[in-house]
Amino acid sequence: MDWEQIEVKLDQLMAESRHGQLRGALMMLNPVDIAGYMKKLDKEKLLLLFRVLPKDVSADVFSYMDTEQRQTLVESIADAEISALIDEMFVDDAVDFLEELPANAVKRVLQNTDPKTRAIINQFLKYPENSAGSLMTIEYCEVTQEMSVKDALKSIKETGVDKETVYTLYMLDDQRRLIGAIPLHKALVVPEDTALSKLVDPGIISVNTMDDQEVVADTVRKYHLLSIPVVDGEGRMVGIITNDDIMDVIEEENTEDIEKMSGLAPAEEPYFKSKIITLAGNRLPWLMILMFTSIVSGAIIAKFENVLAVNILLSASIPMLMDTGGNCGQQASTLMIRGIALGEVQFKDVFRVLWTEFRVGLLIGLCLSLVTFVRLLLLNGASLIMAGVISFSLFATVVIAKSIGCILPLGAQRLKMDPALAASPLITTLVDAASLFIFFTVASKFVL
Amino acid sequence: MDWEQIEVKLDQLMAESRHGQLRGALMMLNPVDIAGYMKKLDKEKLLLLFRVLPKDVSADVFSYMDTEQRQTLVESIADAEISALIDEMFVDDAVDFLEELPANAVKRVLQNTDPKTRAIINQFLKYPENSAGSLMTIEYCEVTQEMSVKDALKSIKETGVDKETVYTLYMLDDQRRLIGAIPLHKALVVPEDTALSKLVDPGIISVNTMDDQEVVADTVRKYHLLSIPVVDGEGRMVGIITNDDIMDVIEEENTEDIEKMSGLAPAEEPYFKSKIITLAGNRLPWLMILMFTSIVSGAIIAKFENVLAVNILLSASIPMLMDTGGNCGQQASTLMIRGIALGEVQFKDVFRVLWTEFRVGLLIGLCLSLVTFVRLLLLNGASLIMAGVISFSLFATVVIAKSIGCILPLGAQRLKMDPALAASPLITTLVDAASLFIFFTVASKFVL
Repeated sequence: MDWEQIEVKLDQLMAESRHGQLRGALMMLNPVDIAGYMKKLDKEKLLLLFRVLPKDVSADVFSYMDTEQRQTLVESIADAEISALIDEMFVDDAVDFLEELPANAVKRVLQNTDPKTRAIINQFLKYPENSAGSLMTIEYCEVTQEMSVKDALKSIKETGVDKETVYTLYMLDDQRRLIGAIPLHKALVVPEDTALSKLVDPGIISVNTMDDQEVVADTVRKYHLLSIPVVDGEGRMVGIITNDDIMDVIEEENTEDIEKMSGLAPAEEPYFKSKIITLAGNRLPWLMILMFTSIVSGAIIAKFENVLAVNILLSASIPMLMDTGGNCGQQASTLMIRGIALGEVQFKDVFRVLWTEFRVGLLIGLCLSLVTFVRLLLLNGASLIMAGVISFSLFATVVIAKSIGCILPLGAQRLKMDPALAASPLITTLVDAASLFIFFTVASKFVL
Repeated sequence: MDWEQIEVKLDQLMAESRHGQLRGALMMLNPVDIAGYMKKLDKEKLLLLFRVLPKDVSADVFSYMDTEQRQTLVESIADAEISALIDEMFVDDAVDFLEELPANAVKRVLQNTDPKTRAIINQFLKYPENSAGSLMTIEYCEVTQEMSVKDALKSIKETGVDKETVYTLYMLDDQRRLIGAIPLHKALVVPEDTALSKLVDPGIISVNTMDDQEVVADTVRKYHLLSIPVVDGEGRMVGIITNDDIMDVIEEENTEDIEKMSGLAPAEEPYFKSKIITLAGNRLPWLMILMFTSIVSGAIIAKFENVLAVNILLSASIPMLMDTGGNCGQQASTLMIRGIALGEVQFKDVFRVLWTEFRVGLLIGLCLSLVTFVRLLLLNGASLIMAGVISFSLFATVVIAKSIGCILPLGAQRLKMDPALAASPLITTLVDAASLFIFFTVASKFVL
């Protein structure tokens, strides 16, 4: 049965109010798919379906629903019901959800939850957004130096944490300081009386509660971890961050970088969920700034009015110079921004990068300007001097664009600014001004 | 001890040839860090360090080393030694490594490996690059419908697969067809005599050997999986792909998208490892194409030479029009490309997107052109007509740029082309031509 057939079947069961069967059918589906199906339901049906779900499944489905739908649900069900849901959810998902609610609603909802859950959640809500602390969960398995494999398996069974977070055991000393991690698979292939201390992975890899999520993602990716422990300022273990949350962080960081590279303020909401005024507001600041900086290029053109009057080929070459320069600069800056994000390039490499880009620029500049020189002579009937002036300006533009394009992101990183912010729009404007200046200076020397 | 101190210590032990101690020190480090340390060693020291490592650690370290260093090692050690290394490595890592080697070296190396390993690796090497088949590994736990939790734990211990791939048990029927997946954590919290069939997750999620790695990554991310089973054309299970490989795929796909958006051919090698000629070659094709398309803009300027002669403010406005149009188009296309990549936007949304972008364009166009109108009147002493012509052209440019910017990526997706390819450079050129055409048409009507 493909997905469309499943949806038709679910629609039918809902329409006919056969709740027993509906419940049975839903139990055969993945919570992610149930959340997907709920997207197209109206408020009334959404509520019905949610109430039909078994309680443990509903907490899972709720974690996968999008913000808008959660809000619809929350408005319709009683506070006590929400509180029960939160008790059932994993702490990291519950914190995620509560961060979406208005402050007074959070207070109201938390009043009805289990006091222990409430205490933990209240503490988690204090961590800054996008910090390791705000991402972590407390559902993990802790062991001591004295325990054996058998003890660990017993402890897993007793705590009953039904989540993939049990796949790494964290060994703590009596001060709750992290002293090592043991991958569960190591414990499963040895005799049960083996001491856990013999299975500890070399080196302790952890992050601090206040570390940014980018640091967390980089560390997890570097060491190929399933989960990473989070410690407080005194080295005491306070939680772990799981791989699925890290994947979301990676996509988030990538989206943010890409948006910044195109002069967009990072969006808080998915495209279709955003208001027109928000979409416009995210784009306007950079457009306004860049519009004003491009006046510089205009001023250069105005200043050399007399040069332009000499031959229409000069005016006609302006778009080619500006576009090619912008594209060259963008290529170089993109490589730098990506290299910095993946940890391949750093500020200390600046001279090496510059030397590389300089030679790449020479090579590309030579190719492009040769083609242009021939094109001008053969197709546009330009004079040798005219073709030379335009081709040389193109050559110089390419070399300069490559250099500006690689220096700006590296410089931004050095100044602790975001490299992606120094990207294409700003570079385009700088390169435009530089290339026009070269063009007119050369032209006024040889053509006037 | 921080990392620098550790490196100093290792350098010292190497220099003094204290191999026993060096071996002991290395065993305290994470294989990722050992591979990192090896990066700065010369060939001789690299070889020494590698031979000092315990055998099981060396296979792990080898998996984390970069291509260049692996090649250095392979050139220096005997084929038999490489073959032993391959026997020790996980199949997916071994296949990765062998794909880097020249064909005759692969044959030579495989001759000495265990015949079973050789058969598997030979089969894996046949899958197309970037397919699910080429990413998968065969180290996973399979169970049958009749087995209990106790049987499964026994089977894990017997096969002794020492990898996180044991965290999902795959249930196969007697035809080796996949009938369900059981997360190991579910099995660890129930009595040992529980039947595994009671713990199977609802719904079967799998990919086909020939599926592209992008499909694999999207599925894993959607369902928050630790590993995903791979089946052949007949639904028989042939392997699994693990989460750490998926993370690498996600970063690779993101890098490729970002590069394409800037008109770069995707790079095969890291920046500093690439030759200048390769770097230039990756960038030249699009630059050449876009240089020629920008001639269209030049031709439009040349055609309206007489209009430009009327007032220098007209020439001076060209960079502002071109830059703002390009930036607006790029913003819209970036949002579309990212939306498509994350599955938030599809071709069927084209009218909804167009309507959204149209209204965003109106709003932004109004803001920018109003500011420009006032600027031209107050700062540049333009006439009402002149300011009106330039501002109106800017307004129209913004609206058109937003529309082109959103349609192109969606259209590319519809034509089964890569949306990222239809991105900023091409859009800039199209928008340039459109905005200049509007500008001169309006200007020649009102100014001449």
